[in-house]
Amino acid sequence: MKVAMIQDKIIAFDELEPVYLDRGFYFGDGVYEVMRSYDGKIFALEEHLQRFANSLAGIKIAGVDIDRIHARIQKAFEAAGISNARIYFHITRGSSAREHDWDTNLKPNFFLTVTNVTDDTEAKSKGIAVSTHPDWRWKRCDIKSLNLLPNVLARHDAVQKGCEEAIFVDEAGLVTEGASSAFFAINGHTVQTAPLTANILPSITRKFAIKAAQNIELKVIEKSLTPQQARDSDELLIAVTTKDIVPVVKFDGKVIGDGKPGKYTKLLIEEFRSFTV
Amino acid sequence: MKVAMIQDKIIAFDELEPVYLDRGFYFGDGVYEVMRSYDGKIFALEEHLQRFANSLAGIKIAGVDIDRIHARIQKAFEAAGISNARIYFHITRGSSAREHDWDTNLKPNFFLTVTNVTDDTEAKSKGIAVSTHPDWRWKRCDIKSLNLLPNVLARHDAVQKGCEEAIFVDEAGLVTEGASSAFFAINGHTVQTAPLTANILPSITRKFAIKAAQNIELKVIEKSLTPQQARDSDELLIAVTTKDIVPVVKFDGKVIGDGKPGKYTKLLIEEFRSFTV
Repeated sequence: MKVAMIQDKIIAFDELEPVYLDRGFYFGDGVYEVMRSYDGKIFALEEHLQRFANSLAGIKIAGVDIDRIHARIQKAFEAAGISNARIYFHITRGSSAREHDWDTNLKPNFFLTVTNVTDDTEAKSKGIAVSTHPDWRWKRCDIKSLNLLPNVLARHDAVQKGCEEAIFVDEAGLVTEGASSAFFAINGHTVQTAPLTANILPSITRKFAIKAAQNIELKVIEKSLTPQQARDSDELLIAVTTKDIVPVVKFDGKVIGDGKPGKYTKLLIEEFRSFTV
Repeated sequence: MKVAMIQDKIIAFDELEPVYLDRGFYFGDGVYEVMRSYDGKIFALEEHLQRFANSLAGIKIAGVDIDRIHARIQKAFEAAGISNARIYFHITRGSSAREHDWDTNLKPNFFLTVTNVTDDTEAKSKGIAVSTHPDWRWKRCDIKSLNLLPNVLARHDAVQKGCEEAIFVDEAGLVTEGASSAFFAINGHTVQTAPLTANILPSITRKFAIKAAQNIELKVIEKSLTPQQARDSDELLIAVTTKDIVPVVKFDGKVIGDGKPGKYTKLLIEEFRSFTV
């Protein structure tokens, strides 16, 4: 008889709840999004749904009705009644006995949480420290998939070093992005970030950070930096959905500028805020 | 109030079963093994447990008692009473609210299934077709992690092309291994396979296939092949836990040899069988 075991408990395989046979577990075979609301309003919902649709297509999960996902998000967000909420959701390909290839009849599984955003006052006012880590991720980081073990290991390494974020450096010696953020450098009146390729997530917050930079008449260049160029920059910052723009004041131990959030970074935070009201 | 949503159903976040907060879901933050039994005897159990311990260490999951895992496997295998069984198990870092870095107090989650091995008579007697796919995997394929989306996508692509397995080709244009197998070529009296690096899983079946080759006095070279060299080989084969050695008779549409399992491949299958009794 086919059996399963969960911790120390044996049960009949056929009595397993579908969640234990979710391909999200076996393969990380799914895609996700994280959004946030500001004062009761979900920010950039349409952009996130569009990217989610792209990610689903990228891993060939078909038959998901994005309008229905939209309705579910609204329903859960309203039920939670949290004005500054962090909304996470994922879709996996479905539940079945473990086989690499999939049955096209599988029904995708949807999962969502609405929780409170973490307070970012200190990160924003004091800035954060970051450390570099080799970019061990797969070659399709433009797809927001559940294969995040390299991100997890890099973040853990950063935290062990007293940092808040890990910044990936690829084999060519170029900065790609953070473990869960986009990365920007400011020099003079120029803001620089890596161009969008298969190795970079098309970050929504990155897009709005660029818009904010343009609004305050900074020049924006999409060109990869070396870690040395990052260390030598006037200002550094990361862009992340749950905290929008966060100043970076230390890079691999090197103090950036005077060790406080830079003037343009502060203007960008302010400009970004105008998008969220 | 924090909420969660599973398909269309809203529930309180705090009432979520721990399985829904498993880091295996959010990040593929876990490692796994697949073993099989031949006529009631688990093959290479110690080797698999040793590799599992290495994988756990590789992603810094601490505090797992391997002897206890061993006991659980035996208990479940006996309960199933399947003589030719496929034994899958994984450990994830534990269940908690989604944060990239982990709390070191997390209790790892264990999950195992014992099912029947798929009949491999036809694959062994007729051989299989394989097709190449770019190796999109992360840079630590020596760790047997749950981040398997590139493997899944490559296998699907292969099946769409009428093949049974995908063979990865890296950016240098060299064959690494199969989506869930090791890959070997035979030319003259020489068996060739890629050397073990961070991009190759230290496959247990690979190890026994090499031993089988040495036993029948073939020369073994651990050196990467190009797809062209693979196409031009006398014989090709894959090594995979659940089926041990499987002849490959077609590579990217090119018929290998006379399109039937090669003579040395057949000898290797026979020799491998002697290890399993």
